[in-house]
Amino acid sequence: MSSSNELDKLIRALQIQPGIGQRSAMRIAYHLLERRRQDAVELGQILISAMHNIKLCQCCRNYCDYEVCNICQNPERHNRQLCIVESPSDVAAIEQSNNYFGLYFVLHGHLSPIDGIGPQELGLPELDQLLSQEQFDEIILATNPTIEGDATASFIAAMAAKHHIKSISKIASGVPLGGGIDNVDQKTLASSLLNRRPFAQ
Amino acid sequence: MSSSNELDKLIRALQIQPGIGQRSAMRIAYHLLERRRQDAVELGQILISAMHNIKLCQCCRNYCDYEVCNICQNPERHNRQLCIVESPSDVAAIEQSNNYFGLYFVLHGHLSPIDGIGPQELGLPELDQLLSQEQFDEIILATNPTIEGDATASFIAAMAAKHHIKSISKIASGVPLGGGIDNVDQKTLASSLLNRRPFAQ
Repeated sequence: MSSSNELDKLIRALQIQPGIGQRSAMRIAYHLLERRRQDAVELGQILISAMHNIKLCQCCRNYCDYEVCNICQNPERHNRQLCIVESPSDVAAIEQSNNYFGLYFVLHGHLSPIDGIGPQELGLPELDQLLSQEQFDEIILATNPTIEGDATASFIAAMAAKHHIKSISKIASGVPLGGGIDNVDQKTLASSLLNRRPFAQ
Repeated sequence: MSSSNELDKLIRALQIQPGIGQRSAMRIAYHLLERRRQDAVELGQILISAMHNIKLCQCCRNYCDYEVCNICQNPERHNRQLCIVESPSDVAAIEQSNNYFGLYFVLHGHLSPIDGIGPQELGLPELDQLLSQEQFDEIILATNPTIEGDATASFIAAMAAKHHIKSISKIASGVPLGGGIDNVDQKTLASSLLNRRPFAQ
């Protein structure tokens, strides 16, 4: 028990954040109380408002403030390309790589029958409807390169094939750029050898 | 710009926490939205309430919910010992070491004339009054072992001397327990040699 029950409660509550244990939570609580009380009150208000107001976009299931998200509403995006990802943070990562200007569809997970996560939970009926309503030239499968992610990608590829889409692709896996080949795990290296490409001059 | 303005705002606001940069803030925001919305709303409420309600104890200047803190109110504490520390987190650390059962006085900083922090800002007039009102047998100076911390300790020791307190001590500095002597910095090692003690069998 410390000198203040409210402080104890704050230190416990801060630990719902991933990567924040008791020591970090104490450091954060003391820092906010000592130096940034007003900012911390604002953080509290923003947290409450965000948790109540952020919902899923009706088109792509990414997080958004209204019915349709900023990306789906943007007329400059290439609306014949659709990239399918497991989570909203994957969208953020791809956006930051600054090399894709099409639309997205967010699954919020991968197929995992043991955990009761089937096509329904991943919004695949909505995706099916989207594919029949809109005319996509290309579907890019950007699920994680894991067993579950690959299985999910296969399932979606089979579904998309019914809609006569010109190109269904999967993002490349292999040795990360700038990395040393001797630091890469065996499976990645094996896959990167199997999927070698003609050398482009 | 991400898909949601509220999300962008949340990611920015989370970064007021020390040690949380943009990547961690994104990870935290997505985790809370995906899995712990209700807990995050509670965290928001606790933050707001803590920032408004936590004040300084009228006796020891530690954080507390009412006028006087849990430690000062506790009749089982040794009320003739007073430990003087720089910050509330020092109180928490000493409490966790489970070896001190007296009272505290929290300075909330150290003397630093350049930053305009003098005796007034550290509550030394209140400490002076406390020393004249209460009968302390021992004052333990537990300021940080830095130039500013040592200067602050000297200043307080001079002040306490006027009140005829039996013992004025300073916590020991030296090689941390369990540490290797070859890993300790030169100044600590020099101080630990200078302050060597008779070997107790």
